Amino acid sequence: MHWRTALRASDAAAVLSLVRDTGFFSAAEEQVAVELVDETLSRGRDSGYEFLFADMPDQPGKLQGYTCYGLIPATESSFDLYWIAVSPAHQGRGLGAELMRESERLAYAAGARKMYADTSGREQYAPTRAFYERMGYTKAAVLKDFFAPADDKVIYARRLGPAVGFLQP
Amino acid sequence: MHWRTALRASDAAAVLSLVRDTGFFSAAEEQVAVELVDETLSRGRDSGYEFLFADMPDQPGKLQGYTCYGLIPATESSFDLYWIAVSPAHQGRGLGAELMRESERLAYAAGARKMYADTSGREQYAPTRAFYERMGYTKAAVLKDFFAPADDKVIYARRLGPAVGFLQP
Repeated sequence: MHWRTALRASDAAAVLSLVRDTGFFSAAEEQVAVELVDETLSRGRDSGYEFLFADMPDQPGKLQGYTCYGLIPATESSFDLYWIAVSPAHQGRGLGAELMRESERLAYAAGARKMYADTSGREQYAPTRAFYERMGYTKAAVLKDFFAPADDKVIYARRLGPAVGFLQP
Repeated sequence: MHWRTALRASDAAAVLSLVRDTGFFSAAEEQVAVELVDETLSRGRDSGYEFLFADMPDQPGKLQGYTCYGLIPATESSFDLYWIAVSPAHQGRGLGAELMRESERLAYAAGARKMYADTSGREQYAPTRAFYERMGYTKAAVLKDFFAPADDKVIYARRLGPAVGFLQP
């Protein structure tokens, strides 16, 4: 396992392949995931998106998991975890938790004092919500029927401190 | 008074002048207001932003007020009122309420079933919050310290129906 924050041109295809493999996201969501990579490849840091990749040095085009996060515009120190995904072959071994903690640590070092993560209230997202709760996130708000009728938006939040990371504590 | 939804090249400068005149927004916020106009001038409807302007036919470069709203990406029928501003010379005569109701009517016709409006919990925004409440909006969520310490994000929401507009009921 190898952690990497620098983007490569091959990451657009690698992210698409990863989020597709999860079988979890819609085609429109897959498109958004790739757009965030493309925008950052072309604009650099100005995009406002930061990435953390877990991959293997000998398999450069394949990702085991990744996160995309960044400062929420117009806020002083609130960050959003825009994406977190782990490939099916690497799920169930704590990689999601490691990605999350390491992203929080990097975000904190970049000035983040709060991390937000939005998800859906639908049944399909029960494991996602349980994951955030295990990771110390609390439900900050529920917006009823936000995405569609009977599809609420659930906003999770966690206050970050200096000891959030555990990869390099 | 004249209502207009089509953008003109002069609107970038007119919006900047209007939001500046209110004395209410930061330089960064003014910049965002202009960017939404510029992006829509260059990309057209693909920008996802809709505008409603109140101006006078004989004063083409001057706005009395305006709104900017649009479908929230990844939602079926939730819209966000990104901006609403009335020039100081025209405040206190119900123009804000008219702009709001007409924007809701146009949004409903474009498929909106919910309108969201985000604002701040700071004292400076008490009149803004009171305005949304008078207009039938309810507090859907409060995200503590979202913008900065002691600066909460307050999310207002209103369910839209066929009779929301009153300009052309």
